[in-house]
Amino acid sequence: MKEISNLINYRSDVKVVDATLRDGGLVNDFYFSDKFVQDLYIANLKAGVDYMEFGYKASKEMFDVNKFGKWKFCNDDDIRAIVGENNTDLKIAVMADVGRCDYKKDIAPREESPIDLIRVATYLNTIPAAVHMIEDAKNKGYEVSCNIMAISNAQEGELKVALDILGQSPVDVFYIVDSYGALYPEQIQRIANTYLEFAAKYNKKVGIHAHNNQQLAFANTIEAVGDGVDWLDGTYSAMGRGAGNCAMELLLAFLRNPKYNVYPVIKFIEDHMLKLREDGVVWGYDLQYLMTGLLNQHPRTAIAFTKEGRKDYTEFYKEVVALD
Amino acid sequence: MKEISNLINYRSDVKVVDATLRDGGLVNDFYFSDKFVQDLYIANLKAGVDYMEFGYKASKEMFDVNKFGKWKFCNDDDIRAIVGENNTDLKIAVMADVGRCDYKKDIAPREESPIDLIRVATYLNTIPAAVHMIEDAKNKGYEVSCNIMAISNAQEGELKVALDILGQSPVDVFYIVDSYGALYPEQIQRIANTYLEFAAKYNKKVGIHAHNNQQLAFANTIEAVGDGVDWLDGTYSAMGRGAGNCAMELLLAFLRNPKYNVYPVIKFIEDHMLKLREDGVVWGYDLQYLMTGLLNQHPRTAIAFTKEGRKDYTEFYKEVVALD
Repeated sequence: MKEISNLINYRSDVKVVDATLRDGGLVNDFYFSDKFVQDLYIANLKAGVDYMEFGYKASKEMFDVNKFGKWKFCNDDDIRAIVGENNTDLKIAVMADVGRCDYKKDIAPREESPIDLIRVATYLNTIPAAVHMIEDAKNKGYEVSCNIMAISNAQEGELKVALDILGQSPVDVFYIVDSYGALYPEQIQRIANTYLEFAAKYNKKVGIHAHNNQQLAFANTIEAVGDGVDWLDGTYSAMGRGAGNCAMELLLAFLRNPKYNVYPVIKFIEDHMLKLREDGVVWGYDLQYLMTGLLNQHPRTAIAFTKEGRKDYTEFYKEVVALD
Repeated sequence: MKEISNLINYRSDVKVVDATLRDGGLVNDFYFSDKFVQDLYIANLKAGVDYMEFGYKASKEMFDVNKFGKWKFCNDDDIRAIVGENNTDLKIAVMADVGRCDYKKDIAPREESPIDLIRVATYLNTIPAAVHMIEDAKNKGYEVSCNIMAISNAQEGELKVALDILGQSPVDVFYIVDSYGALYPEQIQRIANTYLEFAAKYNKKVGIHAHNNQQLAFANTIEAVGDGVDWLDGTYSAMGRGAGNCAMELLLAFLRNPKYNVYPVIKFIEDHMLKLREDGVVWGYDLQYLMTGLLNQHPRTAIAFTKEGRKDYTEFYKEVVALD
């Protein structure tokens, strides 16, 4: 049982990461207006958010720059056009996917870049490649985190081997990532304990990135805070792939550190997120995401169901059960 | 830390209560079509739900029967028109509010009624009146539960006095009710432990009825299950006052007892709940409910904001902070 002080006092090690442009970009192919991004940067500054993730450093060899908004590629100049020299307490992050990022070429030395944190995203079967990227980013001077994706499908023994390898790398933060929105809070607690054991051994921090397939993204995030996880991802209006993420407005309202302020988040939602939805951008909890989360499946079938405007939930249920 | 067996095995004492007509009726003034109610009854039967709450036994002296659908009053004949003699495993419940129910007149002896369970709803300041209603219902032969509402505003000492009084009454189940959607899972755990202490002393069961203001209705319900709470309220598509309740589809998907089946719930949602929303019936999580939940206020201001179609969240935030 967690102590009541968790809800009255706060832990100053907690860091909040705004992943709206990055995970939300998966919903609208990263086509955000400059005004949206500028106002989001200002809102994060005012809200006391610690890191703002601008998007991906995606390979321009693999992805056509004419088919996505610029935040799929996060050129340093594009970030600088928003943040200038960013002489603020808000740090800048980008995500670099193993196998989908020309990191040697596309990630400049930190002193030449507005970026502070490189978030390396990997599956369990590409951990050695992730370590190469972590070392490259660290050698260039960045803070580095590592997201191990889709762990709800992982064998606990293999996960421990991965954490032991990452522990010996120069990475700063291990991330718990519930890619399929499949995990319940009691599972988060067990997984957090595993991560924290290796974090203690190797002097790392632990983070969490949740998905809302079963309306548990916020609940799983605050479960993790109570367990000792310090780095917390949120997105405005929970915007993110499929069922979306942990809502920033819920997260900042929950955290007791006086440096956080939910009002600028509410204002940004009123000014920008309502319009996104009116314009037809669709994300958030619905039955199809519950089903893939429940069955611990990738949400791609549910995303397709959503894009096609289908409402025949029972047919979809039969389809995903057949995939199981 | 809860044991992993909680998510693999199940506790046969768990009972699921469908509160769609009762709490959902607060959204549409209880105007459900007969077809809706008939199909809901069939869906609950197929899904293995234990109790179906049809609505309120509201006083016809206080409330005009021409201004509400029939499920605000739950005449025995109206229930019987749906369920016949109800020779099934699904039991029938109604809610009776302290001070708003002519229970001596309107609640018949059980052998003359299709109802099995009377759910007495009370605030902390009307516990003695609740005890009178509990005794009346018990003397008439019913199972009886007692919902203590708005406990997020209660002093722990007073709550314990109330539970001690109720413990000495013939009530069967004490209900934890998060009327304002203000509670976090760690608070649910502490409250559940308090309820369970008195339940053990007096040989009662404990239930939970959650609201989704902070997207925690399902999370708080499964937290409570893990703590030993047995009676769980859910509603189809989480339909309920304001931000709604714990979604039945999430709850049945989570529970491991093979008698529960989520498919009929999905089918009912496809057949009926989508149409309710298309017809303009509005419920569910939104920023205004987050705000009243966060501030531990009654949702009435947020419900008014919703009905007026307002989207000026920042103005509303200033209004509710001023009420605090």
